[in-house]
Amino acid sequence: MAMKTKLSLAIFLFFLLALLCSNLAIAIGREETDPELKTCIHQCKQQRQYDEEDKGICMDKCEDYHRMKQEREKRQHQHQREHEHQHEREHEHEEDENPYVFEDRDFETKIDTDDGRVMALNMFDQKSKLLRNFENYGLTILEAKGHAFVSPHHFDSEVIFFNVKGRGIIGLVMEDKTERFNLEAGDIMRVPAGTPMYLVNRDENEKLFVAALHMPPSSASAPVNLEAFFGPAGRDPESVLTAFSSKVLQAAFKSPKGKLESFLDEQNKGRIFKIQKEDLSGLAPKKSIWPFGGQFKNPFNIFSNNPAFSNQFGSLFEVGPSEITSGLDGLNLMLTFANITKGSMSTIYYNTNANKIALVIDGEGEFEMACPHMSSSSSHSKQRRSSSTSYQKINARLRPGTVFVVPAGHPFVTIASKNNNLKIVCFEVNAQRNKKLAFAGKNNIVSALDKTAKKLAFDKSAEKVDEIFKRDEEFFFPYDVEDESKEEHGRADE
Amino acid sequence: MAMKTKLSLAIFLFFLLALLCSNLAIAIGREETDPELKTCIHQCKQQRQYDEEDKGICMDKCEDYHRMKQEREKRQHQHQREHEHQHEREHEHEEDENPYVFEDRDFETKIDTDDGRVMALNMFDQKSKLLRNFENYGLTILEAKGHAFVSPHHFDSEVIFFNVKGRGIIGLVMEDKTERFNLEAGDIMRVPAGTPMYLVNRDENEKLFVAALHMPPSSASAPVNLEAFFGPAGRDPESVLTAFSSKVLQAAFKSPKGKLESFLDEQNKGRIFKIQKEDLSGLAPKKSIWPFGGQFKNPFNIFSNNPAFSNQFGSLFEVGPSEITSGLDGLNLMLTFANITKGSMSTIYYNTNANKIALVIDGEGEFEMACPHMSSSSSHSKQRRSSSTSYQKINARLRPGTVFVVPAGHPFVTIASKNNNLKIVCFEVNAQRNKKLAFAGKNNIVSALDKTAKKLAFDKSAEKVDEIFKRDEEFFFPYDVEDESKEEHGRADE
Amino acid sequence: MAMKTKLSLAIFLFFLLALLCSNLAIAIGREETDPELKTCIHQCKQQRQYDEEDKGICMDKCEDYHRMKQEREKRQHQHQREHEHQHEREHEHEEDENPYVFEDRDFETKIDTDDGRVMALNMFDQKSKLLRNFENYGLTILEAKGHAFVSPHHFDSEVIFFNVKGRGIIGLVMEDKTERFNLEAGDIMRVPAGTPMYLVNRDENEKLFVAALHMPPSSASAPVNLEAFFGPAGRDPESVLTAFSSKVLQAAFKSPKGKLESFLDEQNKGRIFKIQKEDLSGLAPKKSIWPFGGQFKNPFNIFSNNPAFSNQFGSLFEVGPSEITSGLDGLNLMLTFANITKGSMSTIYYNTNANKIALVIDGEGEFEMACPHMSSSSSHSKQRRSSSTSYQKINARLRPGTVFVVPAGHPFVTIASKNNNLKIVCFEVNAQRNKKLAFAGKNNIVSALDKTAKKLAFDKSAEKVDEIFKRDEEFFFPYDVEDESKEEHGRADE
Repeated sequence: MAMKTKLSLAIFLFFLLALLCSNLAIAIGREETDPELKTCIHQCKQQRQYDEEDKGICMDKCEDYHRMKQEREKRQHQHQREHEHQHEREHEHEEDENPYVFEDRDFETKIDTDDGRVMALNMFDQKSKLLRNFENYGLTILEAKGHAFVSPHHFDSEVIFFNVKGRGIIGLVMEDKTERFNLEAGDIMRVPAGTPMYLVNRDENEKLFVAALHMPPSSASAPVNLEAFFGPAGRDPESVLTAFSSKVLQAAFKSPKGKLESFLDEQNKGRIFKIQKEDLSGLAPKKSIWPFGGQFKNPFNIFSNNPAFSNQFGSLFEVGPSEITSGLDGLNLMLTFANITKGSMSTIYYNTNANKIALVIDGEGEFEMACPHMSSSSSHSKQRRSSSTSYQKINARLRPGTVFVVPAGHPFVTIASKNNNLKIVCFEVNAQRNKKLAFAGKNNIVSALDKTAKKLAFDKSAEKVDEIFKRDEEFFFPYDVEDESKEEHGRADE
Repeated sequence: MAMKTKLSLAIFLFFLLALLCSNLAIAIGREETDPELKTCIHQCKQQRQYDEEDKGICMDKCEDYHRMKQEREKRQHQHQREHEHQHEREHEHEEDENPYVFEDRDFETKIDTDDGRVMALNMFDQKSKLLRNFENYGLTILEAKGHAFVSPHHFDSEVIFFNVKGRGIIGLVMEDKTERFNLEAGDIMRVPAGTPMYLVNRDENEKLFVAALHMPPSSASAPVNLEAFFGPAGRDPESVLTAFSSKVLQAAFKSPKGKLESFLDEQNKGRIFKIQKEDLSGLAPKKSIWPFGGQFKNPFNIFSNNPAFSNQFGSLFEVGPSEITSGLDGLNLMLTFANITKGSMSTIYYNTNANKIALVIDGEGEFEMACPHMSSSSSHSKQRRSSSTSYQKINARLRPGTVFVVPAGHPFVTIASKNNNLKIVCFEVNAQRNKKLAFAGKNNIVSALDKTAKKLAFDKSAEKVDEIFKRDEEFFFPYDVEDESKEEHGRADE
Repeated sequence: MAMKTKLSLAIFLFFLLALLCSNLAIAIGREETDPELKTCIHQCKQQRQYDEEDKGICMDKCEDYHRMKQEREKRQHQHQREHEHQHEREHEHEEDENPYVFEDRDFETKIDTDDGRVMALNMFDQKSKLLRNFENYGLTILEAKGHAFVSPHHFDSEVIFFNVKGRGIIGLVMEDKTERFNLEAGDIMRVPAGTPMYLVNRDENEKLFVAALHMPPSSASAPVNLEAFFGPAGRDPESVLTAFSSKVLQAAFKSPKGKLESFLDEQNKGRIFKIQKEDLSGLAPKKSIWPFGGQFKNPFNIFSNNPAFSNQFGSLFEVGPSEITSGLDGLNLMLTFANITKGSMSTIYYNTNANKIALVIDGEGEFEMACPHMSSSSSHSKQRRSSSTSYQKINARLRPGTVFVVPAGHPFVTIASKNNNLKIVCFEVNAQRNKKLAFAGKNNIVSALDKTAKKLAFDKSAEKVDEIFKRDEEFFFPYDVEDESKEEHGRADE
């Protein structure tokens, strides 16, 4: 009996400790009331058709989902760490640790229908300290099949569209009428924040690809929201109007209870759907009598002006930020389009002011960038911290859909593969007063040093320095190097 | 004896584990040196009259207070979670999960005297990611009883005052003189950052209510500080001069040790106190001969211009941002005043650029807003994340003192109760190029779609769409819907 | 046997619990994949000469280092807390809790050679909420011995140099040539973001001290990067060119494999090194025929204009932000230089708009500032929070190299010691429309109050107030107070 007591005591102590430790876990896990959880609970309360019991069930589901999500995140963390070691040795996920490059898997699918989809990349969601320059920007990419129509919607950000490929129509709504414009490949169209709009692929077969940069309106400094507000449309997916109570809808639209809801209910084609040829002709833009059009500036084609640089190895087209007719004035933004001939490369250069967001639209290639290596000192330490700046090599393979970012001041190169031209469109933000300064090529910053400085910097005669750095080609060069694939492990360059 | 040993062993193991777990708790709890704690300790050191032992006691009190505060926060978290479930079913604290609406309890009391008080709401303290657009702004609300005088002070933010109700005088100090202005209900007064000022309620009986928006000076992007710097005044509460050492005060004011301190000591009326009628006449503004006054622009009344919209159901007055005489130029700010007739509503509309901070000053009503539902994907996941945008219904009851915020692009409505007009004053920031676009009413964005787009968007003929969306009234409508209170649980709409 | 079973059971339970608790610890500790760790692992992968085994070892070292760093940080935290109590009573580390003052130990050493060094202070690394106004700025300080040459480099931030002491030459590179300017003590030189440059100390014996403010280019709002990109230079330390692959270098510079690397390898003099007199004459600036020079504005000396304030107790020189010839226009920046006579003080004053970053360059003294005391309310609490604003005394000793910051609106004083003049150079950011408003001296904001307000504010006759506040000297006063060192514990004022 005494022994039973001791066993009971031991078991009791065990449970006490287990309780203590799990309370600890609970206390840590519940550190913050997750805003998502708050919203989910709030949403449950809004459901009119639920009685109190249903609301309780709904809220419990919120809690369960929340708990599951947290556990999933923890598991993913552990898996990720295991994967990182394993795959690095198998060099399959090379870019996993590269915060400057984004692939398909980094994009979020906002819309996905049979006739088209929209992918989004919000720079604010990227946690790395290194990307602070980019945090108020976002990219969305629309892919629309033949004759696909994107239902009217608006964004709360400024949107700058670039027609990558295909032939489209964009309709923009003013308070009392709609203006429509044809979009050709290379067209840039600025849409002011909040403007209701729709898009159509006016080709029957060829896909329409449009890339858009989103930035905060009126010089605000805040992250962009990449969710569109769809006005019309139905209940699945929802129209923004369904967020309002039945009474508000009745009163706002002078319609009996439920009439607007049934009206909206009947549209069930989704947000992107194929339309008939007859409807397409109804959407053709009117010829504008006045060259200045209506409220909105016409699309501006990036290939209208002469390229900034062009030779047999590549060409670079630029628009803005001071190009008045482009509509980009006041946005502190420049768009560039680089077409690097196969087997060629851009020079090693950097932007003095602009931060570059680049989207590869065709071909394959390589990207290399120099980044100052992060110091290893802790800011908590009160001793003098020391670091010797070295430069980290950032590199990645490029393929259509790859997005990479280059902060101001950072030198980089892009190289086209042997087989295809490499085409990249770039949104360069903070572009005012920007200059592109190169280390190699006709006007390079080393050759521009005065004679004495050259000699001192390299510890060689100025002539020897010029021998290395002087060259005739400007900005684009042939990339002709011996194939060394047998010597290389871990990464094949070509 | 062997059994006693085993028991001891079990007990020993138990204590070892308890120690392990509690050390874990301590390690987690002490993760960061709380800046508040640091400041409290620093403050202790500054007290001249304390000897070493007193300083030690002072610092221990800081630690105790800090520990108590952390425990209180943990308990509040647990209580809050319990309350949320309980009160949701009793629908008493509906707005608890709503990050867009602020009530009395969300304000911090900055000054509280018998003759007046100042309440403050700093948007930067609101943790929600959804409010990033607002984080550099703050609101203060002054409530002053008859003939109350607010002692001279300055803010380090730009301040835009709006006289909600009552009759006041504001005095603004230049380097060598003070300019005084009468403030009437509806007056807007901009006070540049750092300007020393005072306020008076010049009515004997009626309270003076003044609301103020605070924003960072000179286009800085940083949170505002809502603490005022009180220059004169005494020791309880303190003058900012008491923060300086006795020697500095002696040298700065050429006065013997302690003279300035005694001088300051004798004012013990607090920061807001009642003054005599004779003094009030001494504060009456002088008549200005020149219409342009002195350094400061005169107050600008929001009702001076014709309303932007007005019918029997409501009216909307607007000022700025380009209204030169208002003094708001350069601030990218617009002020609006909406007076919604009882039993009426505003249309469903959104601001294209501006972020709205609204303060309800009279009447009761409802507020509904559509917000894109937050995606549930984790940014740690490397798989493609998917989300289908749906719209969340945000709603709240409105009463005098309620503050709600509406980010750009988000459609919303406000509805007045059956019994009283609803009056709301709004500070609309980032207002440059802003337009108000409505879904319902005379000029709505759906009717403005072209015929084909209407048909495609709704899957109905354009005529049927117009039937629903066309209406004569602009911006304000009657809110005449059947009373369904018997069917409703959880929330009564009127 | 039954007892053995029980013992085993107890031991088994014990290990189960220990496992539970330690898993908890591991889960907490691994909450985030540290970006530093990610970069370190990425760097390992880049090393061409490593085979798979070496890469594995490299990555393990990263993990070890990371773990050690975390443990070191935890230990430092604990040590810091112990030190804080101990040293406060010994008053040796007074400024430890002062977030507004930075000493030598707060700087990071970026370059350290026999002939010179560069120290850096990045305001973004300072965790305190109170310093949000400063987070996008950084300071670097160059100290170059006689005839030292700083190798060509560029920054990705706007840089505003101030020559504190000594005689230098700065060379700035345009696309095709270099412009050189002499730098004298007091010269201000703005270098646009991304401009390649070098510096020389043209004196043989006297050290050259240059202080630089770094700010984001083109009105961006992001933290600055204080790492320079060194173009030329060798392998130790590295040239930014070494971050690119061998193939890229071959193709960019049309040079056989390894030729550029050997070329770069041979410079091993470091980033700052002593040069010969003959080379120095090669770097002397050419006489410019046109007064407007080339691309860059000439240095502007802070002493060229008359001082803003000057008497026998001190003088204050100011430049910008509207001074066109200074080159500071468009940067919203003002530079000031204060020379406080020994035994004198500045007045108690504040900037209405500007945030001040001050560097002490000569002499010793004191600094006092008033800061509103942080409220102790928690934002999680849903009850009305209450706080009574009091003012915290911030003070510190000043010596050459001390940096202190003063946010807009905060009153402060600086006092020179009895023995030496105190010289401080300040970078005042957000300086547009800034005014300096004083509490004491000829034009003070209290004397500027109207008669009635004075009387009400102090509860004394206006004449008595004027007696205290009126004084003839403007801005600088004698600091003549009795020495009370015998009565003082904890802090000696002089």
